[in-house]
Formats: sequence, structure tokens, C-alpha cells
Amino acid sequence: MEAVSRQAHRIRILGIDPGSRITGYGVVDKIGDTFRFVSCGAIKVSAKSSFPLRLQEIHTGISEVIATLQPDVAAIEDIFVAINPRSALKLGHARGVLILAAMEQGLPVHEYAARMVKQAVAGYGQASKAQVQQMVRALLQLSGTPSEDAADGLAVALCHANHCNSLQSIVS
Amino acid sequence: MEAVSRQAHRIRILGIDPGSRITGYGVVDKIGDTFRFVSCGAIKVSAKSSFPLRLQEIHTGISEVIATLQPDVAAIEDIFVAINPRSALKLGHARGVLILAAMEQGLPVHEYAARMVKQAVAGYGQASKAQVQQMVRALLQLSGTPSEDAADGLAVALCHANHCNSLQSIVS
Repeated sequence: MEAVSRQAHRIRILGIDPGSRITGYGVVDKIGDTFRFVSCGAIKVSAKSSFPLRLQEIHTGISEVIATLQPDVAAIEDIFVAINPRSALKLGHARGVLILAAMEQGLPVHEYAARMVKQAVAGYGQASKAQVQQMVRALLQLSGTPSEDAADGLAVALCHANHCNSLQSIVS
Repeated sequence: MEAVSRQAHRIRILGIDPGSRITGYGVVDKIGDTFRFVSCGAIKVSAKSSFPLRLQEIHTGISEVIATLQPDVAAIEDIFVAINPRSALKLGHARGVLILAAMEQGLPVHEYAARMVKQAVAGYGQASKAQVQQMVRALLQLSGTPSEDAADGLAVALCHANHCNSLQSIVS
């Protein structure tokens, strides 16, 4: 019973900030009511690669992160801002292969609007990138400031950690 | 030498008309200046499935088609019409996992605007779906009329067959 109880209290969350050029990610453990930093980084695709090849690089990159860090769940930023259809289409491709990679390794996938992610870490939905970086650093007690993309990935993971609180309290 | 020459003259083309609900596909052999129908169909995802699950269904569906029919090249319809950003984002996800599936099995991927596809099979870029169906049926000498989605897939394959003419005449 002890093993089961310990299992219920530790959730490893992969947060993803998708992009067709740079995809930020962050992995956070939620243990009871505390957060623990695990890893963060960015998958950058070569500007010289063809678009199909870039999609493959993004898919391979996040698949390796998942295989190595073994998260229990994935959270990915959704887009509601009025970007033009061409940019939305391009970003959709990247999100598609990222979500697929998570599904292929059996992770449930949750989506959060950018506004919700900023709200969760910085307290309001219009927070700047620099504010997100500072708040992520403070919340996870990091010794340095993560890059913008990695901080966005961590922020998505923290946003999910906040939103799964109520569910977890029922489970545990 | 004979085997090499025969190889150069037969190209098997997979044409894809992507959609977040229904993806049409068609496979055509181009042998010298003639076309031969191989297969066509549609990958329909369950409306009850979550969006991540649908992406996985699309990816699995087209991967199976590729593994079974062994095309040499993939061609996929591109979108230039002014659809709204939300629809473009959704469609992008589907295109992303479709392109990835082709890349994973080593196929070069070519993209064609819907207008070019219609131009290639029906002679003008504003052809209706029914006209595309009729022209695809005539060009491939089919005994029946393929469904709208399957016909669109076949039309993309035929469009690529037309556009690789000049390259092929250099190769062969």
C-alpha cells in the first residue's frame, strides 16, 4: 500500500511550448504540494532543412526527451491569439507531431491556452516573456534563469500542475 | 541495364488530400507517359475520439497505406485559401502527422496548391469536386466514380505525375 500511495503523490509533467522553429520544453515533478525541477531545454530545427525534415526533427527531439525523462503526462500550449492562417497552419504541423510523439509513448495530453499558462505562473494573462522567466525561476528555486523557450515549457508544466490539483486530491 | 531502365520508368505516387476528419488518398503508377490506378480510399477518424487520438488514427492509417502499397514518393495538397486561423491550425496538425508518416518511411514529400491540383486534372483551378471526380475517373479509366475524398487524393497523385514529367525525361 505504501508503494501505491507514493506513486499517487509524484507526478512527472512534461510541458511543451510548440514552435515550427524552436520548441521549448520543461519537466517538473509535482510531489504532494511541492514542485521539483527535473529538466528543461529547447528543440531547435535547422533553418536549412526542408519543412518535412523539420517536422521529423521536432518529432525525434521530443520523442527522445520523453524516452529519457519518462514523464507521466504531457501538457502543451494552445494558440488562441489571432495569428494569420498561414502561421497557424505552420504551427499546427509542429503541434501535430509533438502531440503524436506524446501519444505514441502513452502519455495523456492536456492543452492550455497561453493566457492560462501566464496566469498560472505570473498571476496575470498578459505577462511578458521576461516575467515568465523570473517567475519560473522563483517557483522552481533555480540557480539560473532558463532561456525564454525553456521557461515557457516549464510554465506549461507548472500550469498543468496547478490544474491537476483538484483531481489529485480526489485520487490520493 | 534493362532492370535499371524499367525502374526509371515506373514511379508509384501516393497523393494525399489532408483533413482533420477525413483524409483522402490515391495511389497511381506512372509508367512512361501512362497512368495506372493502384488504389484509393479515405481515412476517417472517429468524431468521438479526442483530438490527440484522432491525430494518432490519421498517422496510423496513412502509415499502413504506405507500408502496404510501397509508393516511391508522396504528394500532399497545400492550403492557400483564406480559411480562418483556427481551422488552419487544426488542418496543420493533420498535415503534420501525414508528412511525418511519409518521411518516416523514407518518401520524398512534394506539396501542391489545391488550385494546381484542379488545374492538373480538370484543366482549370476552380473546378468543382464533382468535376474532379469525373476527370479522375476518365484519366484513370475507372469503372466507377471514386468518392470525393479518394478522388481528391488521386488528383494530387496525378498532379505530381504531371509535374515530374520534365525531371523524368532527364533521368530516363
